[in-house]
Amino acid sequence: MNKKDIVRIILGGKTISAKPSASAFASSNIALCKYWGKRDEELNLPVTASLSVSLGHLGTRTKISISNMADRITLDDCELADEDPFARRLISFLDLFRSPREKYNIETKNNFPTAAGLASSASGFAALVIALDDLYAWHLTKKELSLLARLGSGSASRSIFNGFVEWQRGSRDDGMDSFAQVLAEQWPELRLGVVTVADEQKAVGSRAGMRRTTETSELYRSWPLQVEKDLRNIKEAIQNRDFELLGKTAESNALAMHATMLAAWPPLLYWKPETVLVFQKVWKMREAGVPVYFTIDAGPNVKILFLENQLNVVSKNFGSMEIVTPFS
Amino acid sequence: MNKKDIVRIILGGKTISAKPSASAFASSNIALCKYWGKRDEELNLPVTASLSVSLGHLGTRTKISISNMADRITLDDCELADEDPFARRLISFLDLFRSPREKYNIETKNNFPTAAGLASSASGFAALVIALDDLYAWHLTKKELSLLARLGSGSASRSIFNGFVEWQRGSRDDGMDSFAQVLAEQWPELRLGVVTVADEQKAVGSRAGMRRTTETSELYRSWPLQVEKDLRNIKEAIQNRDFELLGKTAESNALAMHATMLAAWPPLLYWKPETVLVFQKVWKMREAGVPVYFTIDAGPNVKILFLENQLNVVSKNFGSMEIVTPFS
Repeated sequence: MNKKDIVRIILGGKTISAKPSASAFASSNIALCKYWGKRDEELNLPVTASLSVSLGHLGTRTKISISNMADRITLDDCELADEDPFARRLISFLDLFRSPREKYNIETKNNFPTAAGLASSASGFAALVIALDDLYAWHLTKKELSLLARLGSGSASRSIFNGFVEWQRGSRDDGMDSFAQVLAEQWPELRLGVVTVADEQKAVGSRAGMRRTTETSELYRSWPLQVEKDLRNIKEAIQNRDFELLGKTAESNALAMHATMLAAWPPLLYWKPETVLVFQKVWKMREAGVPVYFTIDAGPNVKILFLENQLNVVSKNFGSMEIVTPFS
Repeated sequence: MNKKDIVRIILGGKTISAKPSASAFASSNIALCKYWGKRDEELNLPVTASLSVSLGHLGTRTKISISNMADRITLDDCELADEDPFARRLISFLDLFRSPREKYNIETKNNFPTAAGLASSASGFAALVIALDDLYAWHLTKKELSLLARLGSGSASRSIFNGFVEWQRGSRDDGMDSFAQVLAEQWPELRLGVVTVADEQKAVGSRAGMRRTTETSELYRSWPLQVEKDLRNIKEAIQNRDFELLGKTAESNALAMHATMLAAWPPLLYWKPETVLVFQKVWKMREAGVPVYFTIDAGPNVKILFLENQLNVVSKNFGSMEIVTPFS
């Protein structure tokens, strides 16, 4: 099975008429229980389920219009060269949906600072899929949109929804049971603070990092068990509004993910020295009784987890933090 | 089974006459395949085997003499107070061997800077056991000395020997098959460089850190498999003088140990920001073709592994390093 087969299954004979243009927005998301490791690299099928919270108004707006010229991709008002890696990734994704003659003009904008280290591929591919659905009037279900977005980027499957979102692992080889679903619960008091430690491109991308970890890290064998336990705890925490359980599970899950990378060869360490300082600051605050936790993706930047009523003390400790209100 | 039972088994009726005093030296050691986790806390029985290299002239000299006054313990020319944790640990160990009336005067000296972050309990308990053997003329075998030293501190079982030393896990409940043995091979060109990042007392001692890891870290479940593979590779590397295999296995093993801690709760991170800098420096050197690796114990300091012919380039990169020649 390749991506094209899956697209054919989902769309059937639907791609007939196209509007001149369409536009869509999708929120970025941050995983509280991480996605790390693919069981199928072509279809972006994960080794485990994962659970995220969307980032409200922070995300990607994408406008797509049919063109009879060459493809043209603009990211944050800059036109990308054909050989730009992001442009190539987008184009090979778009090739799944169009006839060879059809060309697109794509304008995509992230309304979060790229420096914040938030994943732009998640909201980027989700916004693109929603825009395509509108452009071609496919009228797909959210489940189908999630399946398509997953083919672009695994975590994009979650960015189809807002709020707490679980991406199911699924067990089928064709991945038709591996899509995201939204949880009923909301948690308006929840806050995320993005502490930016470095804004350079990471040396090893997520795809390569996952592959290295699954192929060489002995400790990765225990990762599925960790996720199983953490998913259960995070869902329980959300249901009971138990912030301590949510925070400690998310923090432990993120550190365990980094632990599996550390045990890979060559070792994979996305941290900067300053990353360790931020961890230690959080731990010190917690020792002083402040209910504050963190999560961290495959990069050096740290996302502080806290509740609205701790905003003052958290802001005081992390000055240059970007504050996110997921349920605004 | 408690420690006293084991001492009774090993010594039988041997403790009869004592010389007035005795003295012994034991080398410190650094594990290339780490000891992390106890299967029996009372008897210091390890979850896995481990393998170390001794540090030549760096170690502990201990003099013990019989006294009819109170116990008196001098560490590096400073008399320790009765309530000093190290003094209490030593005294409760000595209580295993003596009648209640017998008192000791103990002078113990480490000839490595305490700041270097080398484990002093390994060489300390090994030197003490060898001195006791001389004091009471027990004439124990090295295996028996290793068993006794293990009761004081797990890694002390390895400091009874010089060179490459393997401490066997054993499977018996009484631990009589869990002792160290020396490997036949030597490797005179091997060098260790101790890069001292911080010299403060660590916040969580090894004993507590091991307990926290074995009790709460999901990833620790894979640790025994990691050790099994690493032990095999390190022995093969020593036999074939394959420095690359030795280095990468030791480095990966150390990072995997730290990874198991990172996945514990509360998270256990012995590093300082500067520790990460040292890692990155080593990785950069390796990318530039210099065969250099590191290992790191449960603390912030890093031990660089290299061969004699790289001394210049390694010294240039790590100025304030203490260089150790294990086979001098």
